[in-house]
Amino acid sequence: MKQKIYFDYNSTTPARPEVVQAMMPYLDSATGLFGNPSSVHTFGQATRAAVEDARKKVAALLGCSADEIVFTSCGSESDTTAIKGTAFSARERKKGGHIITSAIEHDTVLFCCDYLSKNGFEVTYLPVDSAGLVHPDDVKKAIRQDTILISVMHANNEIGTIEPIGEIGKIAREREIPFHTDAVQTVGKIPTKVNDLNVDMLSLSAHKFYGPKGVGALYLRKGTRLHPLFHGHHEKNRRAGTENVAGIVGLGVAAEIAMKEMESDGKRVAALRDRLERGIIGSIPSIHLNGHPALRVPSTTNFSFEYVEGEGLVVLLDVEGVAVSTGSACASGTTQASHVLRAIGVAPNVAQGAVRFSLGHFSTEQEVDDVLKIIPQVVDRLRSLSPLWADKIAGRVTEITPAERFIKPAKK
Amino acid sequence: MKQKIYFDYNSTTPARPEVVQAMMPYLDSATGLFGNPSSVHTFGQATRAAVEDARKKVAALLGCSADEIVFTSCGSESDTTAIKGTAFSARERKKGGHIITSAIEHDTVLFCCDYLSKNGFEVTYLPVDSAGLVHPDDVKKAIRQDTILISVMHANNEIGTIEPIGEIGKIAREREIPFHTDAVQTVGKIPTKVNDLNVDMLSLSAHKFYGPKGVGALYLRKGTRLHPLFHGHHEKNRRAGTENVAGIVGLGVAAEIAMKEMESDGKRVAALRDRLERGIIGSIPSIHLNGHPALRVPSTTNFSFEYVEGEGLVVLLDVEGVAVSTGSACASGTTQASHVLRAIGVAPNVAQGAVRFSLGHFSTEQEVDDVLKIIPQVVDRLRSLSPLWADKIAGRVTEITPAERFIKPAKK
Repeated sequence: MKQKIYFDYNSTTPARPEVVQAMMPYLDSATGLFGNPSSVHTFGQATRAAVEDARKKVAALLGCSADEIVFTSCGSESDTTAIKGTAFSARERKKGGHIITSAIEHDTVLFCCDYLSKNGFEVTYLPVDSAGLVHPDDVKKAIRQDTILISVMHANNEIGTIEPIGEIGKIAREREIPFHTDAVQTVGKIPTKVNDLNVDMLSLSAHKFYGPKGVGALYLRKGTRLHPLFHGHHEKNRRAGTENVAGIVGLGVAAEIAMKEMESDGKRVAALRDRLERGIIGSIPSIHLNGHPALRVPSTTNFSFEYVEGEGLVVLLDVEGVAVSTGSACASGTTQASHVLRAIGVAPNVAQGAVRFSLGHFSTEQEVDDVLKIIPQVVDRLRSLSPLWADKIAGRVTEITPAERFIKPAKK
Repeated sequence: MKQKIYFDYNSTTPARPEVVQAMMPYLDSATGLFGNPSSVHTFGQATRAAVEDARKKVAALLGCSADEIVFTSCGSESDTTAIKGTAFSARERKKGGHIITSAIEHDTVLFCCDYLSKNGFEVTYLPVDSAGLVHPDDVKKAIRQDTILISVMHANNEIGTIEPIGEIGKIAREREIPFHTDAVQTVGKIPTKVNDLNVDMLSLSAHKFYGPKGVGALYLRKGTRLHPLFHGHHEKNRRAGTENVAGIVGLGVAAEIAMKEMESDGKRVAALRDRLERGIIGSIPSIHLNGHPALRVPSTTNFSFEYVEGEGLVVLLDVEGVAVSTGSACASGTTQASHVLRAIGVAPNVAQGAVRFSLGHFSTEQEVDDVLKIIPQVVDRLRSLSPLWADKIAGRVTEITPAERFIKPAKK
């Protein structure tokens, strides 16, 4: 593949070389490090030690104890285990069936909640303001006697807005309601200590912070009750299946690197992101920045370009060697406007023109500057095809509906 | 790790070098092959192509079409998706709640059925004969109006007995009952064409046939209805989560190699296994071969050594450099005698002395001969610690209960 610019780190990240290097002995069978960690013999003991070492590293990143970490295959599995597992356990114990989540969760959470709502549970979807923030007061108001779970994401994957998880967690704790956060977009990027976040469950995915694809984890606070999705002896009866040893080792190393580099890397990436943002704002008219201006993960900026289809922009940028996304990779191929942008009040036509740029560890200033040269050309090209844009620049329209009209003011 | 003899291929296999080599470009991010397969851009298209190529290879091994393959993270996930997914879908459609399975399934299936039986479903556990065979007539008798699923494993992981899946499948089809088989121990080792097996669902796991850990697949015959475990767009709405690209590529290559080498490798491994078996029978008294003498996967032999604890034998053999297992790795650490050996009627004291030897692609005649020198010494050492054995060889007991007394005769 020819050298391209990858600005889609929120979809997935390239694994760090140190991660791959650490995984290799557990893939290359010549080392003998291929045993089943559940086996009693030396082959099994060696891989068991590697799995437990990785568990400690992940626990260190989250500030919890190692036995509160359950390895899974991905963020979606972690999310689903937390949500279905808590729901089914609560139902068995006749605790009620009301779940609170937000309108801007990742599809896997929303689809899971939708499934549960068709199977005897009731779900409240909290609104967000125009910056994408869930308001703790709304959480308070939504809580009922039969509320069994609150699940609110730590940061949104499309617009990057960081939710007030610590505050929501405090409310959940006061009411003794289990609280889960999908931290797939924050772990390894900003601090995610479970005691600061006041969470009982937290989902993470290795490939979102320079680990391999195919492995994730669920933090489960001691005493949290849930039904496993797959039943078996592994992971202390919390998740059946032979452990993905190499993947888990990779996740452990990614966690270890994140502990060391998160702060400096975050600052550097945010500076690059801000440079990109300023450049776009300075060079292209009729655009809107989606998401909170300050409370945002360092990686992410999301713009709506009026009179442009986001999908077309993504395709043309790809031709020019720049990989970006309209929003969640998981939802690509669907034609609906992003549920996140709709929830923050972006007008449908403006939401259709949204593009997410997400930067990361390997991003450079040169790449930002290259992209800043390419985008205006590509946006111009697309707009030149739009009769509406022609009308606008010719002054033939008396009123272009400003997208801002559709956006509710942020509450804070 | 010093050179050891690995005779525990049923627990897990070392990945073939060709498999690891094929995975590498998808782990090493310098290649650019790290995109999220759901992404629209070139990075995503490249990994999407790799995933779809692997899907074709797995489909070829099973004789199905590629879109009938759903990638999962392991055999346990495949099994659980098939069983819970079918059960919950049937319940939603008010089709009934009766499930038929066998008494010797893998723990993940039994635990899943146990879970369902506590949640409104009813499960019939079919008995097996002394060789471990499920009898199709027993399946027929167990079927009820409200039977919604039959799940019988293709070959047993502990004793290797191959079940008459094709016949059971025919019965299931006549009654229009979805039929699932856990083929984790057979895929890649013996033919597993889904149309010969008459199955609607089939579980496989890459690491059981020289692929990587952390990836599996579920064959889902077109038209089979089930609820996904994790909800999302991926895998045609059948399994959410960013694909484990490198793992899936590895699974594809393992399937491709199996297509080519299964027959010759199977013969070679069976010959080695038979050599080991003959050697053990010829050199050690008071032992029992567990499982069917002929209808067995090539890899597996399982012996009960009287007056010996299997766990002790495993540990001492490990000290001598030989890795074997008492049975399922997944159940190690539990103190109960194997549910499989109990189901085939092995007396508890004899079941406790069971050891599984499982051979594979990298096993050699030299290894077999080395093991044949070591085992008698180790068994002798352990027996010399047993007062019961001392009584027996001194003729001080009037009757040693022969284990055979507890074993029901095989029906065929």
